Amino acid sequence: MGDKQFYMNLALQLANSVVGQTSPNPTVGCVVVKNGRILGMGAHMKAGEPHAEVNALIQAGDEAEGADLYVTLEPCSHTGRTPPCADLVIEKKISRVYIASLDPNPIVAGNGVAKLRDAGISVDFGICEQQARDLNKCYFHFMKTRKPYVTLKTAATFDGKTAASSGDSKWITSEDARLDVHRYRNRHDAILVGVNTVIHDNPQLTTRLPQGGKNPIRIVLDTHLNIPIRSNLLNDKTATTIVVCGRQADKEKRAAIEQKGVQVKMMTGDTIEIEPLLNWLGEEQILSVFVEGGGAVHSSFVEAGCFQEIVMYMAPKLLNDREGTQAFSGMPKQLMKDSIPLAFKSVEQIGPDIKIVAEPMERRE
Amino acid sequence: MGDKQFYMNLALQLANSVVGQTSPNPTVGCVVVKNGRILGMGAHMKAGEPHAEVNALIQAGDEAEGADLYVTLEPCSHTGRTPPCADLVIEKKISRVYIASLDPNPIVAGNGVAKLRDAGISVDFGICEQQARDLNKCYFHFMKTRKPYVTLKTAATFDGKTAASSGDSKWITSEDARLDVHRYRNRHDAILVGVNTVIHDNPQLTTRLPQGGKNPIRIVLDTHLNIPIRSNLLNDKTATTIVVCGRQADKEKRAAIEQKGVQVKMMTGDTIEIEPLLNWLGEEQILSVFVEGGGAVHSSFVEAGCFQEIVMYMAPKLLNDREGTQAFSGMPKQLMKDSIPLAFKSVEQIGPDIKIVAEPMERRE
Amino acid sequence: MGDKQFYMNLALQLANSVVGQTSPNPTVGCVVVKNGRILGMGAHMKAGEPHAEVNALIQAGDEAEGADLYVTLEPCSHTGRTPPCADLVIEKKISRVYIASLDPNPIVAGNGVAKLRDAGISVDFGICEQQARDLNKCYFHFMKTRKPYVTLKTAATFDGKTAASSGDSKWITSEDARLDVHRYRNRHDAILVGVNTVIHDNPQLTTRLPQGGKNPIRIVLDTHLNIPIRSNLLNDKTATTIVVCGRQADKEKRAAIEQKGVQVKMMTGDTIEIEPLLNWLGEEQILSVFVEGGGAVHSSFVEAGCFQEIVMYMAPKLLNDREGTQAFSGMPKQLMKDSIPLAFKSVEQIGPDIKIVAEPMERRE
Amino acid sequence: MGDKQFYMNLALQLANSVVGQTSPNPTVGCVVVKNGRILGMGAHMKAGEPHAEVNALIQAGDEAEGADLYVTLEPCSHTGRTPPCADLVIEKKISRVYIASLDPNPIVAGNGVAKLRDAGISVDFGICEQQARDLNKCYFHFMKTRKPYVTLKTAATFDGKTAASSGDSKWITSEDARLDVHRYRNRHDAILVGVNTVIHDNPQLTTRLPQGGKNPIRIVLDTHLNIPIRSNLLNDKTATTIVVCGRQADKEKRAAIEQKGVQVKMMTGDTIEIEPLLNWLGEEQILSVFVEGGGAVHSSFVEAGCFQEIVMYMAPKLLNDREGTQAFSGMPKQLMKDSIPLAFKSVEQIGPDIKIVAEPMERRE
Ligand SMILES: [Zn+2]
Ligand SMILES: [Zn+2]
Ligand SMILES: [Zn+2]
Ligand SMILES: [Zn+2]
Repeated sequence: MGDKQFYMNLALQLANSVVGQTSPNPTVGCVVVKNGRILGMGAHMKAGEPHAEVNALIQAGDEAEGADLYVTLEPCSHTGRTPPCADLVIEKKISRVYIASLDPNPIVAGNGVAKLRDAGISVDFGICEQQARDLNKCYFHFMKTRKPYVTLKTAATFDGKTAASSGDSKWITSEDARLDVHRYRNRHDAILVGVNTVIHDNPQLTTRLPQGGKNPIRIVLDTHLNIPIRSNLLNDKTATTIVVCGRQADKEKRAAIEQKGVQVKMMTGDTIEIEPLLNWLGEEQILSVFVEGGGAVHSSFVEAGCFQEIVMYMAPKLLNDREGTQAFSGMPKQLMKDSIPLAFKSVEQIGPDIKIVAEPMERRE
Repeated sequence: MGDKQFYMNLALQLANSVVGQTSPNPTVGCVVVKNGRILGMGAHMKAGEPHAEVNALIQAGDEAEGADLYVTLEPCSHTGRTPPCADLVIEKKISRVYIASLDPNPIVAGNGVAKLRDAGISVDFGICEQQARDLNKCYFHFMKTRKPYVTLKTAATFDGKTAASSGDSKWITSEDARLDVHRYRNRHDAILVGVNTVIHDNPQLTTRLPQGGKNPIRIVLDTHLNIPIRSNLLNDKTATTIVVCGRQADKEKRAAIEQKGVQVKMMTGDTIEIEPLLNWLGEEQILSVFVEGGGAVHSSFVEAGCFQEIVMYMAPKLLNDREGTQAFSGMPKQLMKDSIPLAFKSVEQIGPDIKIVAEPMERRE
Repeated sequence: MGDKQFYMNLALQLANSVVGQTSPNPTVGCVVVKNGRILGMGAHMKAGEPHAEVNALIQAGDEAEGADLYVTLEPCSHTGRTPPCADLVIEKKISRVYIASLDPNPIVAGNGVAKLRDAGISVDFGICEQQARDLNKCYFHFMKTRKPYVTLKTAATFDGKTAASSGDSKWITSEDARLDVHRYRNRHDAILVGVNTVIHDNPQLTTRLPQGGKNPIRIVLDTHLNIPIRSNLLNDKTATTIVVCGRQADKEKRAAIEQKGVQVKMMTGDTIEIEPLLNWLGEEQILSVFVEGGGAVHSSFVEAGCFQEIVMYMAPKLLNDREGTQAFSGMPKQLMKDSIPLAFKSVEQIGPDIKIVAEPMERRE
Repeated sequence: MGDKQFYMNLALQLANSVVGQTSPNPTVGCVVVKNGRILGMGAHMKAGEPHAEVNALIQAGDEAEGADLYVTLEPCSHTGRTPPCADLVIEKKISRVYIASLDPNPIVAGNGVAKLRDAGISVDFGICEQQARDLNKCYFHFMKTRKPYVTLKTAATFDGKTAASSGDSKWITSEDARLDVHRYRNRHDAILVGVNTVIHDNPQLTTRLPQGGKNPIRIVLDTHLNIPIRSNLLNDKTATTIVVCGRQADKEKRAAIEQKGVQVKMMTGDTIEIEPLLNWLGEEQILSVFVEGGGAVHSSFVEAGCFQEIVMYMAPKLLNDREGTQAFSGMPKQLMKDSIPLAFKSVEQIGPDIKIVAEPMERRE
């Protein structure tokens, strides 16, 4: 591994350690190096707090003059909640800037590089670019589409069932697999479920990791506002809940829900269309949604062509129940070749279970 | 790796290269060694032909006197289609015999070892025993239960469907995966399908490998003898076909089938019970059955508790069809914990697909 | 990997990225975590600058209250160039402190933990301890012995020669291997060679990495002050040089050397004894010495029992010169079993060469 | 792995299991396959015994008609101690022949293929060719050069010594490493040492493996016939010994040696030249020589450019003896770049030791 790769990797590791806690900002890491010595290193830790470059440059102090700066994303060139990092880089008299990936945000996109070059700084980009993009896959997706990155999650038996025909599903997967699900929750801006899941399971949908965790916003798809007024999601205050309904939903129920301090988002159609919903969530600065079913909800995302990843936990058990619940309960299809082509990204053992991650074939951009 | 392991491994490799072609006999490999030199090596190649020990000892010739003999299964002590190998080992004046596993066949089971020891030969057994048992898993299972070893095979989409609701299933998996299926066929004594598969697909159920292959016996479960009289299975002569029916099956249809030279096996009940069927197949010296569906057939094996292995090929595609065909279409279940516990044995990439092999949890003996 | 391991690993990575640039201080990394979110992370970057805990806690700010702090070495409890970190941890109201390893420095050694516990903070230590000790192996060795950690480096042909009998040694190993040597120099406080190496090669003994690097102090063992007055080491100012001599060394030569601004260290004996030399270097706060030969110098360290590691680069060439220079030219030995027992720590391919790292067998503490 | 590779690999494994026991013949494996079933398999076990093809075809019997034959070396086309295999292949009506490598033996070289093709058999060669050549590297080398393949073996300390200056060398390496040496002996036609090794150690130079082993011919280079008349090599009868001397050697000593039934080979020069010696050994049908030192002997092979492989066992010990014995004690060299360039083939841990295998750079043909 060459030295540029070494330092960029360190910057990527710094960013990687805070994935999921900077939304709606991207996660970024930065390292300042002079004469084979690291003068400063840092990551952007949280929206509203200093950018990675600022943390690294402040630590470097006056020694930064003449140093090289490695950053995983193009330095910003506009004034946001903090002044532009490109200006600070120039002010600190950095000699060379190595950037893993340009920023897809249209108000940056190349402007950061241009500003640095105009100031006479040597700029290289494209080192470890794919890793930098993968690190911020939600951010890149959002910047391109203005919709959140959608991950569909399912836990099923070997024969593809998510519950017995009675509805019972306790427990399909092992504790290890369920812990892994909480890690996903911790990194997402929102969790989304259908109202039937709420009615049936009355879940909390919070992040329960040994060391705590961030609770994502909880979104319930509930066309007719059938959500039980006593359900946990409406009553506990551990996380924000948004109930999404169609325009025909009962007004009194809506008022009752709102009275509990829970937002109700009414869509303009009789049913909940996925694409407009995602557009609205994008406007709300939600960059990532973790969809935890049930099957009808999953299907509606699949049919709308609106998902970027599927995570399946497969348990070593055979339910053998022809009426058991299915993870994807879409409309009947005529031909096998009408299937949506996927690509397997990874297969991994988690405790006794297998975790399979797939993505739509066309995704690789 | 010690030297005993080295020679036993060679014997195991010899046996492994002929797995599937010796049924109803076990596959066995043998190596004769003296002074660090291999004098003879061989495997049992086919039922009725010489046993592994014979092949290896004949090659060793007179030099065998005083040599060590490594064999993967206990030498036989009874006169079958060939004279007892134990006698030949004694006659050739072998000094020491290393055996991987005792023979579970009750007419051998320890008698081979006893005979050798009585003749003053030093005998060790248990080297690489688990590998030797895995190599002959069908044979060991058969000797214990008198029923064939049953492997359920399914090819499904990511969401567990084996066909669209229309019935279309061409093609779920890749050519690589289908080639792998033919390798399984080549190693099995019998393939088994339900009559609906015959009606729907009119399959050949033959082994089509680039280098040819052995066609297993084709078994159709067809309670009411609904099999189309023009189906390939009744008319081509590439392999033996057996149609299994209930006692109420139409006599004329039966006669028509038999007239084509195809055996009809009538069970004693109105429906086809799996356990008696397997007992009968065992009597017929069928040691391994590869069950290729459909879902109802798989379920009947699962419900009878009669399967030793499941092989699933999962394709990277999402059918999203709630009425699509399922690999296991059993009766409704109340509780998730009524599932049959499995253990994953292996997960493997085959072309774009994933192959998952599982076995019933209780199997490990 | 559990979550504690995850955070401690991150702290270790932070420390690892600055190995070699904090001497005489240890390298330390620190992470502050609350509710599954990283609030602050940092490393100690350079002696005299803030400790890792300070960097991490400052970044965490007021949110640190109630958080967990992961640190690779016990927080200091005494006022040095910076106030005690234990006090800051207490002031910031951290709940729990996870420590990889206690500090062997007698003025800390357990006091940091005691102080934290007295303040009611929960303290755990021993997570990833071996990695934390390996990271600071020089520091731990120094604290135990008050001598620097000594690494003997040699580059030899397949037949163990470091030069032809003519003295020519250009080049034994590949550029890749030589680059690796410069990485070692960059991480060491001092390089040490014998005067014959200076006379023969007139080396610079500086760190020449693509991105620059820190120049260690250059030490020459030169009992009789035979060093050429025009040698690079006495004249270039790229790094500090210390010439070590015996008490009989010529006074005029000494004055001439000192006039060039180069320190001459006169030992109390006629010859240079290794142990007193290392004691003196320890007093000078030199924690690590990279010994680059020649053979007589290496032998004197070996015979004094004063080395902690040997790095050999072996080139794929056969010199076949019975009078070629040897990497270890000690006194004749009677018995093979008088050899010093080593343990191989790692073997690695570097370009066309092999790098072998060994350590004295008794070292593992 | 395709099916052709599968069968050729099996043939290679068969051959590999008998490496070292067929000299001066090559080791060859053969598999006969029809319709995915192996009909016969075999290896050539010993010079004078049937060739691999014969063993496999005899086992296949009449079924061989129309089958495919996989063989690791071109079938012979001439009558040697056994009739030509090509004729048998034709007689058995094999359809297709797959050959890994052509036979470099000039009396075969392509003739086997031509004969088969003339008989209308489809012939493919080049499958797994490199493996087939590596398997018979001694045979290929011999056929090209008419000299044996020479492996130099050395066991040294970390600092390259094969004995202390006193001569003591017991023991440098571990039992595991010494066992590995015996495996090499078992596979070689001859072992070669210098007379000083005999005088100093009075070795047996036999193969002592747990399961016994073949003793190679023992060759002593002894220009002046200084070998002690009571040495093991002249008196035990466990293996053939040849003493090689110069033309000035004492006639009476020669007679005394010969009287013990030991061959004395007198070279035509005053000293023993390596190349003529190897030519003579080639004439004697010795295809492989394992040279076990000492340093002067190794050097004479190196200086004559007559070695194909070097095996070094490096022990984790530091002798630090400047007068210790060296593995290669050649004449002084002026320049490092006069070294003989090698390539490392493998590095492996054997017990506590490291085994390094190198070959001359130019070897790769
Ligand atoms: Zn910025
Ligand atoms: Zn037998
Ligand atoms: Zn501190
Ligand atoms: Zn032949």
